[in-house]
Amino acid sequence: MQTIIPTKTVGPIKIVDSQFTSEVKVPLATFEAPLWLSVNRGARVTKKAGGIKTVVVSDCMTRSILLQAKDAANALKISNDLNKKRIELEKIISQSSKFTQLQDWQVQIVADLLYVRFVFSTGDAAGHNMATKAAELLQQWLLKQYPELKYVSVSGNYCVDKKNSAVNGILGRGKYVIAESLISRQICEEQLRTTPEKIVELNIKKNLLGSIISGGVRTANAHFANMLLAIYLATGQDAANIVEGSQGFTYAEVRDGDLYFTVTLPNIIVGTVGSGKDIDFVRKNLELLGCLDPSGSNSKRLAVIVAAIVLCGELSLLAAQTNPGELMRSHLAVERERTRSK
Amino acid sequence: MQTIIPTKTVGPIKIVDSQFTSEVKVPLATFEAPLWLSVNRGARVTKKAGGIKTVVVSDCMTRSILLQAKDAANALKISNDLNKKRIELEKIISQSSKFTQLQDWQVQIVADLLYVRFVFSTGDAAGHNMATKAAELLQQWLLKQYPELKYVSVSGNYCVDKKNSAVNGILGRGKYVIAESLISRQICEEQLRTTPEKIVELNIKKNLLGSIISGGVRTANAHFANMLLAIYLATGQDAANIVEGSQGFTYAEVRDGDLYFTVTLPNIIVGTVGSGKDIDFVRKNLELLGCLDPSGSNSKRLAVIVAAIVLCGELSLLAAQTNPGELMRSHLAVERERTRSK
Amino acid sequence: MQTIIPTKTVGPIKIVDSQFTSEVKVPLATFEAPLWLSVNRGARVTKKAGGIKTVVVSDCMTRSILLQAKDAANALKISNDLNKKRIELEKIISQSSKFTQLQDWQVQIVADLLYVRFVFSTGDAAGHNMATKAAELLQQWLLKQYPELKYVSVSGNYCVDKKNSAVNGILGRGKYVIAESLISRQICEEQLRTTPEKIVELNIKKNLLGSIISGGVRTANAHFANMLLAIYLATGQDAANIVEGSQGFTYAEVRDGDLYFTVTLPNIIVGTVGSGKDIDFVRKNLELLGCLDPSGSNSKRLAVIVAAIVLCGELSLLAAQTNPGELMRSHLAVERERTRSK
Amino acid sequence: MQTIIPTKTVGPIKIVDSQFTSEVKVPLATFEAPLWLSVNRGARVTKKAGGIKTVVVSDCMTRSILLQAKDAANALKISNDLNKKRIELEKIISQSSKFTQLQDWQVQIVADLLYVRFVFSTGDAAGHNMATKAAELLQQWLLKQYPELKYVSVSGNYCVDKKNSAVNGILGRGKYVIAESLISRQICEEQLRTTPEKIVELNIKKNLLGSIISGGVRTANAHFANMLLAIYLATGQDAANIVEGSQGFTYAEVRDGDLYFTVTLPNIIVGTVGSGKDIDFVRKNLELLGCLDPSGSNSKRLAVIVAAIVLCGELSLLAAQTNPGELMRSHLAVERERTRSK
Repeated sequence: MQTIIPTKTVGPIKIVDSQFTSEVKVPLATFEAPLWLSVNRGARVTKKAGGIKTVVVSDCMTRSILLQAKDAANALKISNDLNKKRIELEKIISQSSKFTQLQDWQVQIVADLLYVRFVFSTGDAAGHNMATKAAELLQQWLLKQYPELKYVSVSGNYCVDKKNSAVNGILGRGKYVIAESLISRQICEEQLRTTPEKIVELNIKKNLLGSIISGGVRTANAHFANMLLAIYLATGQDAANIVEGSQGFTYAEVRDGDLYFTVTLPNIIVGTVGSGKDIDFVRKNLELLGCLDPSGSNSKRLAVIVAAIVLCGELSLLAAQTNPGELMRSHLAVERERTRSK
Repeated sequence: MQTIIPTKTVGPIKIVDSQFTSEVKVPLATFEAPLWLSVNRGARVTKKAGGIKTVVVSDCMTRSILLQAKDAANALKISNDLNKKRIELEKIISQSSKFTQLQDWQVQIVADLLYVRFVFSTGDAAGHNMATKAAELLQQWLLKQYPELKYVSVSGNYCVDKKNSAVNGILGRGKYVIAESLISRQICEEQLRTTPEKIVELNIKKNLLGSIISGGVRTANAHFANMLLAIYLATGQDAANIVEGSQGFTYAEVRDGDLYFTVTLPNIIVGTVGSGKDIDFVRKNLELLGCLDPSGSNSKRLAVIVAAIVLCGELSLLAAQTNPGELMRSHLAVERERTRSK
Repeated sequence: MQTIIPTKTVGPIKIVDSQFTSEVKVPLATFEAPLWLSVNRGARVTKKAGGIKTVVVSDCMTRSILLQAKDAANALKISNDLNKKRIELEKIISQSSKFTQLQDWQVQIVADLLYVRFVFSTGDAAGHNMATKAAELLQQWLLKQYPELKYVSVSGNYCVDKKNSAVNGILGRGKYVIAESLISRQICEEQLRTTPEKIVELNIKKNLLGSIISGGVRTANAHFANMLLAIYLATGQDAANIVEGSQGFTYAEVRDGDLYFTVTLPNIIVGTVGSGKDIDFVRKNLELLGCLDPSGSNSKRLAVIVAAIVLCGELSLLAAQTNPGELMRSHLAVERERTRSK
Repeated sequence: MQTIIPTKTVGPIKIVDSQFTSEVKVPLATFEAPLWLSVNRGARVTKKAGGIKTVVVSDCMTRSILLQAKDAANALKISNDLNKKRIELEKIISQSSKFTQLQDWQVQIVADLLYVRFVFSTGDAAGHNMATKAAELLQQWLLKQYPELKYVSVSGNYCVDKKNSAVNGILGRGKYVIAESLISRQICEEQLRTTPEKIVELNIKKNLLGSIISGGVRTANAHFANMLLAIYLATGQDAANIVEGSQGFTYAEVRDGDLYFTVTLPNIIVGTVGSGKDIDFVRKNLELLGCLDPSGSNSKRLAVIVAAIVLCGELSLLAAQTNPGELMRSHLAVERERTRSK
């Protein structure tokens, strides 16, 4: 039994990055045919404009265990005590996997409940299981070290996996990537049938203000989730992580008459090894993307491509929405095309 | 080019509903093999416990257009005026599709910006395109009717599609479904190796309190997104809608020594006709689920199944997390199994 | 024993409203001396610019009772049944006070829990107690009418009083007021030492984007809470309602070279009768504000003044922050002045 | 011109703390007479139960400056570079005040915008102005050090002052205090006319679940804001800080048949020196509270008292709400009393 998602490559997208500069075709898996056209337009436009600059701000995977102390003072004492035990924690983690490394940890205490959010480096794996495995060992050690502690859960929802939150964006989870493009007024007008001013205005009124009044948390974009889903599926990711991935920001400015257009994605969760990555088509797609390089940094490269693809799709949709009727017209055209081609 | 997601059926799950009572096997598409086992356990346990009761609270699809008035007073005047024009609005919508019907609309005014969120019934379709099409016609009419209005966007992010928000849960978007099961202490202990008390305690400390401190908005669950993704993909849904789908609530109580376990999903967005539903495997899966009944209510039936599946997966994971080490052990067992079977 | 808050009038502010046009001096109670200067500058500038236009979008007070049904289906049945009983509900409410009137109600069901959020008109009172009293009678009636219901609480935190939320802004609580001012470039430059462009830019980067990344919910302003506190205290309000009052939006645009500057406050909670309003200085201040008019609409007039004052303070602070060093310099100047004057 | 808030002392409350153990009468300023009775009952009950245990988890004041870099990579480079310049930053801060000390800083980058959130110790002052002054010097230095940076604002709303947010609770702002009390079943029944089970149940359904569905962010309590306002006013605080102060958590459990009742307040913002603290009645009240001790730690002591007062008020209200009709009856009784006594 198989679920088969229609998949096409878009691009090439042109990426300009201190480490990952390249032109790359990107496979997108989706039931929504208009997505390919839309992202493709963004790819074409940004390529013509000189490409998409990307930067990886940080990279980690997290898991927050949950323990209960004798009282709040006891929880605080243990938390303070932990600060002196980094070396022991690192030693424990090294037993779980040689690729899992401790970056840091953060604590929240509510009543006598102790939420400890461990932050790991997990190499080219997305790292869910590596983080859980390490967290479990750490929790066992804590329970032994401080017998007054009571086990509550290996995950206390302060991690946070596949739920919206603010903590992931503020403290980090996954790859934090920013993608920028400077698109000339001429390209805006000719290729996107709009102006820099219109895009900027729409972003303010819809993505910023509209998201605020919707009661969203740390979200300001039009449809990051669409592009994330399509590339996550095509590259064998745990695509439920689009939930936190969708919490990112589109920001645009008019600069000397041109359009400065950016997407900031604090929580791209992707890997190039691990669960799902040994499937044939996945390997083929990762290869296509240049993400099976034995010298490493493959998952960061993939994250950079993800951010660039998100930029393309976001730019194209916003441009369409600046023009009354354009969105529906193009959807219907795709629909007609599809019906005819059957 | 294809993306092929491994897919297995789980269940049967036993659903007890005023309209949709049945036992049904459910296809789940996922790269994460442990999910099948986990949901399957939940299905087995709830069946033994007498089944899962479900109820559909409401059902709609929305789109919020964005307009700019002369000033705030003008925006308010138009908003008040609209309240007298329901019949005209209905007439306009009837031109977009005979299946799209106006339920209601809501307005937010910020400065002189007018966000009008239209709420539609869309039959057995998820209704994204139907809602957009109707909204576009309504917007055109508004722009003609009130020439002082300026077009800003056919979507003002107060809809809200594929972004976290509070508005969707408060005002409705998609199907609002609740699933409940009463599981005896004996079944808890024998089948789930836990107790009602432990599940309830974990839900409070992790799903309620943990989600609150994470800064999440309208979210209190362990992993709704996993089950949603798996069944959305297997049934040809626009799976990026797991973003809002993941904003739901797990709630549990000890009742006379037994476990009352529930999931509330205010935003299940699924359809049984429309984009993606004509693909062969999708039709086969919808058929398997009994969701191609010519007498209709298919998408509600599907939503009810979705909620039941979510309950199964949620129950099973929480039960596992009440026991130190169980989550990782079972993941590793699956991993070993998979490696061996190659 | 008394707590004495230093109080000065600022203004006059010039208000242009379909109902409440006037020039009015406004008493502000605060320990923070710079606030008077800041709001005063805003008052002077907006007066020179032609005044502040205001509009009251809606007006209500709410209380959500909490009940537990037999199961979710039972909760839904009762909720549906309620829709046919408006007249009975109105009759019950009429027993609590002749000034309390039912506007509407909204329901959320989680598991078998039924949150019913009643929305009342409460005349010139802020209406906390009137809403609670009416809600209590309604709850008693519900418990009798549907004996299967169990009492949980007269308030289920879906009201929401004095906590941040999204529901208050989306469904309404208190007075929803928008205040706008169009300030010429010349006035911006001469009086505020800034430009329309700088204010607009700051609002986007700080109030919109900065608030989004802070993980705030439905908040986009610099310091609404300061002005709200000062006028709430001076007019005998329950000033803890600044918590939801602070959830409002500053929005600005450059229009033909001038500055369109606005504040939107969906949750101003003020009254001119009721608890605290019979104190001498309160009556004097309400009188000064023209809010003891026997013909009524006094609390709406007060809300309009509140919004205008918030606009003045917000404009002045943002203008100051566009200039490096200005904020601190003016604070220190006030401090020196205060020390000298002792 | 003066605003006079009726003020009474409640208590004594009994505080058990590693540093601040004492019994203390606490002045509360409020227009809402029932508050004194309610908090007083909580004080009496917790004293009888052995007192309120408190612990200060952390203590700081923050200010986030906002700068714009050449591009995202440039912003990241500067952020990384800053990590090597702690000593220089400390030196700059030391010029602003000898009491201001750098604890840490955190960065968010969106597009090319750089939000740097500085975290300071500010002794016994709440520290708003000290933080602003230090941040301004740091920003001047940054602008000189990195000439490619552009000034945007001395505050980028990532601080966050007087607005709801998630960042303040996650990264800290003000004093993070937890207060706990263990109240025997007998005391619950006799003094509060309720049971531990009823309080726990109400807290789950109202404060946890009710707040979640309201779309609140990091909030789970009944009325923290009421107590915060009353004690902030009586002690000369900048009471607009109740906005973030109200974002705290009530948590309760049944323990061996008794009630474990707690409040967690991550953002108590109080000082015992600085603006407003030299007023006569303020000094008298601080004296009464034992918060003018020349040996210091006065503001922490005050924060501990604040948390204990919040616990008293929260416990009393929740207890009342477990009984149908009690809340309104007691309000009306107070009202009658007040009318009679005139």
